[in-house]
Amino acid sequence: MPLGELFDEPTDTRQELMGATYCALCEHGYAELTIQRISDQFPKSKSLLYHHYDSKDELLVEFLSFVLEHLESTIPEDDDEPLEALESLLDHLLPTDPSAEQQQFIRAIVELRAQAASTPAYQTQFTRSTECIQNRLVAIINRGQNQGVFRPLEADQLAAFVVATIDGAMIQQATTDSTHTHSRVRKVRTELETCLEARLIRSDTEATE
Amino acid sequence: MPLGELFDEPTDTRQELMGATYCALCEHGYAELTIQRISDQFPKSKSLLYHHYDSKDELLVEFLSFVLEHLESTIPEDDDEPLEALESLLDHLLPTDPSAEQQQFIRAIVELRAQAASTPAYQTQFTRSTECIQNRLVAIINRGQNQGVFRPLEADQLAAFVVATIDGAMIQQATTDSTHTHSRVRKVRTELETCLEARLIRSDTEATE
Repeated sequence: MPLGELFDEPTDTRQELMGATYCALCEHGYAELTIQRISDQFPKSKSLLYHHYDSKDELLVEFLSFVLEHLESTIPEDDDEPLEALESLLDHLLPTDPSAEQQQFIRAIVELRAQAASTPAYQTQFTRSTECIQNRLVAIINRGQNQGVFRPLEADQLAAFVVATIDGAMIQQATTDSTHTHSRVRKVRTELETCLEARLIRSDTEATE
Repeated sequence: MPLGELFDEPTDTRQELMGATYCALCEHGYAELTIQRISDQFPKSKSLLYHHYDSKDELLVEFLSFVLEHLESTIPEDDDEPLEALESLLDHLLPTDPSAEQQQFIRAIVELRAQAASTPAYQTQFTRSTECIQNRLVAIINRGQNQGVFRPLEADQLAAFVVATIDGAMIQQATTDSTHTHSRVRKVRTELETCLEARLIRSDTEATE
């Protein structure tokens, strides 16, 4: 379930609070975000919010942790053919045709990510999410290698490269002229898939060796 | 000449002011930066600074424009063998062993880049720098294709992909746990070169066709 839909029907107070943070963050961006603006989106007791969080950063770090849990629980299962599993993962992490809401959320995440340059609590969250995606990629590549459909290469290196490309495409989407952004992200995605095939798939000659 | 060295021996007032901005930005980061802190690094008339810039953002956008001019004038000449030219460009844009000062600057640039998610003046600068690097890459790829050493493929798509990977490696460097960052960037760089060779270099079979 996409994050936005999850927040449409929250099942507990934490989800409600995280949904309010999500809405306020998408609407105002990081710089203009205040606890007051999050509170405006929060239907429950305002005092609960003010009692638990001293600053917007404290709340946003918890929000990132929530987003990461959501990522971990919704990342596509690794049960397809290895090449299809890679594609599903890319569909999930690098959609080529994001909705307006997804685009707003990508912008907000890029703003939060920049906080990690100076704030350790943010850095911890982004290190975790990077490792989560990296580990999933390594698992898929290893499985393909064990099945003999992928070439023997250093899975860890290829995975680090894929994560960097996804991060770069996201930051470009959020920070460069939006008239060219869509076609740019599509190009990056197409080329990434082509490179992965060139690196991973054994050629007929190799296969018959 | 690296940017830091340029600022060590400025030749005019603009370079001095940009040098002061560079030092203050590296020292304090975006969030803690103030015109006062830039002024503290500026040896000339403080009133000059206060009269010309209403906000730190105005000064930082000019700083980015200056950095971009520097990038354009120092980007390696495209006169080597095409594959070597690609490597020189990567050495320039994605150093695998950045100095402490370069790392601080990368963190600052990532913070400025996030401003582009909400501020058009920043976005314009980052769109320009993206296009500058993209165009240089396309020129090198086209030259290699004209010389028959590179495969005929869509240069624009491959270039967009390379720029995204460089951006992603930079943002990872600035925002994830620094104990693993060095080896992570080295992996991304090694894999990027391997992918470029796999995509660009004709195999012996193709060459004799």
